[in-house]
Amino acid sequence: MSDNRVLRMGMVGGGRGAFIGEVHRTAACMDGGVRFVAGCLSSTPDKALASGQDLGLNPSRNYATWRDMLETERSRPADDRIDFVSIVTPNHVHHEVALAFTRAGIHVVCDKPLVHTSAQARELVEAVSAAGTVFAVTYNYSGYPMVKHARYMVRSGEIGAVRKVIVEYNQGWLAGKLEETGQKQADWRTDPARSGAAGAVGDIGSHAEQLTSYITGLEISAICADLTSFVPGRRLDDDANLLLRLTATGRTDEARGVLIASQIEIGHENDLRIRIFGSTGSLEWRQEEPNLLIHRPEGAPQRVLSRGNAYLCDAAKRATRIPPGHPEAFLEAFANVYNNAAVSIRAGRGGLAAPDEFDFPGVIDGARGVWFIEKTVESAASSAKWTTASFVR
Amino acid sequence: MSDNRVLRMGMVGGGRGAFIGEVHRTAACMDGGVRFVAGCLSSTPDKALASGQDLGLNPSRNYATWRDMLETERSRPADDRIDFVSIVTPNHVHHEVALAFTRAGIHVVCDKPLVHTSAQARELVEAVSAAGTVFAVTYNYSGYPMVKHARYMVRSGEIGAVRKVIVEYNQGWLAGKLEETGQKQADWRTDPARSGAAGAVGDIGSHAEQLTSYITGLEISAICADLTSFVPGRRLDDDANLLLRLTATGRTDEARGVLIASQIEIGHENDLRIRIFGSTGSLEWRQEEPNLLIHRPEGAPQRVLSRGNAYLCDAAKRATRIPPGHPEAFLEAFANVYNNAAVSIRAGRGGLAAPDEFDFPGVIDGARGVWFIEKTVESAASSAKWTTASFVR
Amino acid sequence: MSDNRVLRMGMVGGGRGAFIGEVHRTAACMDGGVRFVAGCLSSTPDKALASGQDLGLNPSRNYATWRDMLETERSRPADDRIDFVSIVTPNHVHHEVALAFTRAGIHVVCDKPLVHTSAQARELVEAVSAAGTVFAVTYNYSGYPMVKHARYMVRSGEIGAVRKVIVEYNQGWLAGKLEETGQKQADWRTDPARSGAAGAVGDIGSHAEQLTSYITGLEISAICADLTSFVPGRRLDDDANLLLRLTATGRTDEARGVLIASQIEIGHENDLRIRIFGSTGSLEWRQEEPNLLIHRPEGAPQRVLSRGNAYLCDAAKRATRIPPGHPEAFLEAFANVYNNAAVSIRAGRGGLAAPDEFDFPGVIDGARGVWFIEKTVESAASSAKWTTASFVR
Amino acid sequence: MSDNRVLRMGMVGGGRGAFIGEVHRTAACMDGGVRFVAGCLSSTPDKALASGQDLGLNPSRNYATWRDMLETERSRPADDRIDFVSIVTPNHVHHEVALAFTRAGIHVVCDKPLVHTSAQARELVEAVSAAGTVFAVTYNYSGYPMVKHARYMVRSGEIGAVRKVIVEYNQGWLAGKLEETGQKQADWRTDPARSGAAGAVGDIGSHAEQLTSYITGLEISAICADLTSFVPGRRLDDDANLLLRLTATGRTDEARGVLIASQIEIGHENDLRIRIFGSTGSLEWRQEEPNLLIHRPEGAPQRVLSRGNAYLCDAAKRATRIPPGHPEAFLEAFANVYNNAAVSIRAGRGGLAAPDEFDFPGVIDGARGVWFIEKTVESAASSAKWTTASFVR
Repeated sequence: MSDNRVLRMGMVGGGRGAFIGEVHRTAACMDGGVRFVAGCLSSTPDKALASGQDLGLNPSRNYATWRDMLETERSRPADDRIDFVSIVTPNHVHHEVALAFTRAGIHVVCDKPLVHTSAQARELVEAVSAAGTVFAVTYNYSGYPMVKHARYMVRSGEIGAVRKVIVEYNQGWLAGKLEETGQKQADWRTDPARSGAAGAVGDIGSHAEQLTSYITGLEISAICADLTSFVPGRRLDDDANLLLRLTATGRTDEARGVLIASQIEIGHENDLRIRIFGSTGSLEWRQEEPNLLIHRPEGAPQRVLSRGNAYLCDAAKRATRIPPGHPEAFLEAFANVYNNAAVSIRAGRGGLAAPDEFDFPGVIDGARGVWFIEKTVESAASSAKWTTASFVR
Repeated sequence: MSDNRVLRMGMVGGGRGAFIGEVHRTAACMDGGVRFVAGCLSSTPDKALASGQDLGLNPSRNYATWRDMLETERSRPADDRIDFVSIVTPNHVHHEVALAFTRAGIHVVCDKPLVHTSAQARELVEAVSAAGTVFAVTYNYSGYPMVKHARYMVRSGEIGAVRKVIVEYNQGWLAGKLEETGQKQADWRTDPARSGAAGAVGDIGSHAEQLTSYITGLEISAICADLTSFVPGRRLDDDANLLLRLTATGRTDEARGVLIASQIEIGHENDLRIRIFGSTGSLEWRQEEPNLLIHRPEGAPQRVLSRGNAYLCDAAKRATRIPPGHPEAFLEAFANVYNNAAVSIRAGRGGLAAPDEFDFPGVIDGARGVWFIEKTVESAASSAKWTTASFVR
Repeated sequence: MSDNRVLRMGMVGGGRGAFIGEVHRTAACMDGGVRFVAGCLSSTPDKALASGQDLGLNPSRNYATWRDMLETERSRPADDRIDFVSIVTPNHVHHEVALAFTRAGIHVVCDKPLVHTSAQARELVEAVSAAGTVFAVTYNYSGYPMVKHARYMVRSGEIGAVRKVIVEYNQGWLAGKLEETGQKQADWRTDPARSGAAGAVGDIGSHAEQLTSYITGLEISAICADLTSFVPGRRLDDDANLLLRLTATGRTDEARGVLIASQIEIGHENDLRIRIFGSTGSLEWRQEEPNLLIHRPEGAPQRVLSRGNAYLCDAAKRATRIPPGHPEAFLEAFANVYNNAAVSIRAGRGGLAAPDEFDFPGVIDGARGVWFIEKTVESAASSAKWTTASFVR
Repeated sequence: MSDNRVLRMGMVGGGRGAFIGEVHRTAACMDGGVRFVAGCLSSTPDKALASGQDLGLNPSRNYATWRDMLETERSRPADDRIDFVSIVTPNHVHHEVALAFTRAGIHVVCDKPLVHTSAQARELVEAVSAAGTVFAVTYNYSGYPMVKHARYMVRSGEIGAVRKVIVEYNQGWLAGKLEETGQKQADWRTDPARSGAAGAVGDIGSHAEQLTSYITGLEISAICADLTSFVPGRRLDDDANLLLRLTATGRTDEARGVLIASQIEIGHENDLRIRIFGSTGSLEWRQEEPNLLIHRPEGAPQRVLSRGNAYLCDAAKRATRIPPGHPEAFLEAFANVYNNAAVSIRAGRGGLAAPDEFDFPGVIDGARGVWFIEKTVESAASSAKWTTASFVR
């Protein structure tokens, strides 16, 4: 198997009116390593077919149902069937589809949050473990080069022991009742049946959780959550403020965390940002200015590290296409998740260990995200300050 | 009484080695409306006298004890005695001195936090009410022109109903054990006997509370606090993360708050900042870039308002000396507190209503700050999520 | 001819060791409208073939010389031959290749600066006019959505009559003698035979000129240039500082300009920025923070416009893929040039008018860039303050 | 003579309606080292007296003419007369007053630009040399701590040999015809009789020149100026764009400069900024964010130095009052000029060497500024590219 074999991608979801499907297709194919060859782009068969036609899919691989796609693709010769499926449906569909393809031995890239319940997540983890397939979850923000360098710095001890994390995902687009205007994104994201038990927490809070975990390696040990739904009639939280306790494997002292995820903070567009405070320095990264990483060493001037430079770590360099000052952004970071998963697929090394080896978010990360959402909702309903928690892989 | 009479200031505390005494003197005298004429600059008589000599105080008004100063100044003719005393000692001394001068009918400007306990604060409030004197508390950050304009905008409804406040006071100077190096500021601020029941919460968290109250007019109705002392052996918190519930007078719905006050966040110098999210827009202000105020109206581009411009409110204009682009900063804002208190003194209008009338923080604000610190410490010790709370004026 | 037909792209240049070839391929194919099917990727036949193999070109369309490619592709059936060729060689090769493909009726996308001399440029303009083909020049920075909105604002009169432009292209990567280290980019860009009569002026100054022209519509009427080569032994300028006079068609008053292009300004990575000052407001845009556009209306607060919002003009919206706060960057802007040229190709409307109609930089813009470089070099050699100049289309 | 003797200041100019007089008084007295005791605050005797009364001057020292003031103060006992005079009139009055006080042996602090002609400046330099008095010129921007540290870094070789300077003084307040509205500042600043031969160049360009000289030590050797008056009917330039050549003493190679000074750049308030590019690094400082200094070393991340930190040079530390993150600004920097001049006065060390010894701008700097204005106007009128120039001390 050659190292730069172009992979064939199928897609479930992401048809007409969807936002994220196009993002996935552009990201997957950006660097030429993946070709989009098959799809079932909607849960409504007619719409699925029309969407595939829009995108120029070969009619023989433009499927009306994902089960058709699974069966038909499986029956194709190995060097012609899809290498992996990208699942970009609303959240409630993820579980069934991901399970079926995994059990069929087809690699999966799945949007987040992974599934609705920890029980579903566990089933999926077991399936991946059994199948030994590659399973990536598109926590795309960890694909940014400067996030990778932040991870490198923390894990290399460059800021000492982590004491505190402030992670925010500030948005304002749901400050009004957008779901009543027919806006498709707002519609399903505020519907518990399709989105899950949480709104802002699930949609964006889970990104904040994953970013924290990715960079610091800390695990949440206690949650104190205040969830609010500001917009009258909205059925899910649109604002979440959490205090956290975080622990490092094998250590007893706890780091402190503040996690903010909101969709009613007017004027913030997609303002994911994180600050990590260690005993000898701190780091700051902001998604809206993603090519920079601020490092504040104790007693010395602030340093502003910039993507593309020779002084960065290998993982950051591998995730970089163009020189310093030529900004890379959201789609490129998203593509990096696909690219690293693709390397794993080409290498024929899947299962639960692949994400660590090839630097992409995996099914375990997805399961931890589901667990985080559940525990946050549990804490929000509790009058106790701390909901202690421990994610079991 | 002329409108621009130069006032005579006495000072208690602020001698050799102190940081804040010089700030108060510079601020009080900056615009020529106040003259520093008398002082008892240390609790150690010899040091007090030596400090006064350093500063060129007339020997006859350079006092060894504050009681001497109070008695002697009272016996001077009315047109020669001090008009007000500025109290800039460590916190534990505030109560006794402020009470004595107030009861003697001498106006007081006192540093924050006001006193150690709510009982002390109540006593002081009653004394001010009885004496009818002016009593200002140097919550200096509310002296910034753009903070005044933020208050104006919120109260004029320009961002709709306030839904959420994120206020942070990020510092890093106590990330190491500075108190063991003999650094005077670190020494007393980490000593419960002199600083009070809280560390970061009292020293800087109380500024964050006052800034929130000043701009929004909201009152805290519930607190959920996580206080930590990261530096081994430190006796007070050096990091505080709070969830808040806030209410407007006469309304039943609650706003949400996140308050962060930390002295271990390396690289943050004196990074007080606040974001206020309303139903139709939001505001952001940062103390380290104090001449700007960011306004984010829904559906329109972000606006950056700048100090000194004709489009600002009267209170902001009155607090401004020089044109746009000629930055004003910390000392000028501090001076604005003194100046507004001085206008109140010259007008002969003191008591509990003066701070609202003349736009400076008063004894009630000081008392509310003490209450906030107490309730935060109470919440931190509690296993209940919310410590409900209601400050009674 | 369908509206979203996928176009077949051939490429000349951009093989192993090249930087810009990969950028062009990624940009051209990013949105799925172009497929890279043929190439002659180096002037050295062996390297050309090896490079094409690296990239998975079909061996039958992996050419050893560009003439082979031209001949062979022409002989393919119309629905299978390349629709256009992308020319990404060092500058000295552009002229011959572009002329040959244009004359053969094949559309061209060519890197900038277009050619070495105005005579060559004129020949090319005439060829395009005669052939009626599409000819795009990859002045990629005008592909940014916020640049398009700046153009819209200026041309709609939102800042009044343009009085002054300050345009800078600040880089620092040639502050040392990089060309002696074997770095390929530095090598040919500092070689007059391959790069042309100018160094920084040609490589990046021409981008600054085009950006100014694109946004304002003004034409340069006089140049006063100071060109320097700071690095000992370097044969071309690495620093250029220009005063400009600019005129609007049909107006007699002149705007003033300052143009800075430098490759020795250490710490500036790819810092192209422009400020446009009108009689009632001003604009500022920076390539390293490309999703924002600052508008400063007279007497009112600064406004910060952000990509992806509903308040932007149609051209900006068409150039946008993802929502506000999900940053788009260099590659996406580059892709926008290809996309607009592709729309022109699909529409079958080429020739000299196409660039205005479909909003991409064309052969006239390329010719004007060559003229600008020539006049700048002429001015630098002159002891007269002003080299008056007038570009004739 | 004690080291911290409070100095007595007289003032000429700066009465009712003036802007800069109040700035000088606040700055001079800010740190308690100077007392304002005498003045002739207007050239109109009645207005002078009324202005002094407003400010509470002792009637016996509130003078109707500056000659009265000079005569009367000279006749007072040495320990009671003014130590120095601060001259804050419109520019055309500086020469006569400064000369008279200097010759009378009274120290002078004079606003900039110093005088109208180089001949006047020379006379003043000779007078200072003869009298041995202290003579400071309030180029206030060199009073900023981070400017002092920039100077330290350049002169310590931390950025290598200076290759290029870009200095800008961007303002927009004269974009309209403000002088016709009765605005006093606009009125005299656009009047050649009172302001001198240049408008923006004299008012703010001279600050840019001095800042460059102060930080780099380079001297201008050639000027190429384009001066414009955009507002119809305005008699002086409101926009200036210059190319410069700069030389270091004893060196033959020249650095390049770009100097922009404009008062029609709408939205820029008081945006003085400078970038200095050396062979191994670069620096950037902006007056509107004066507490930061950006250092960009080659091949390493950008560093952001911040006022008040232990890592700064002594001159920066001496110019600092309060800790990092507690911003200092315009008035504090202005006060630093007065403070350093006051140290020189107290030390009894005046004459032409004092400014270097005590770190304040002196009469030579003022004379160089006048020379710069003259040469710029000369260049603007010339059709030659370079007006070579050499300032003779």
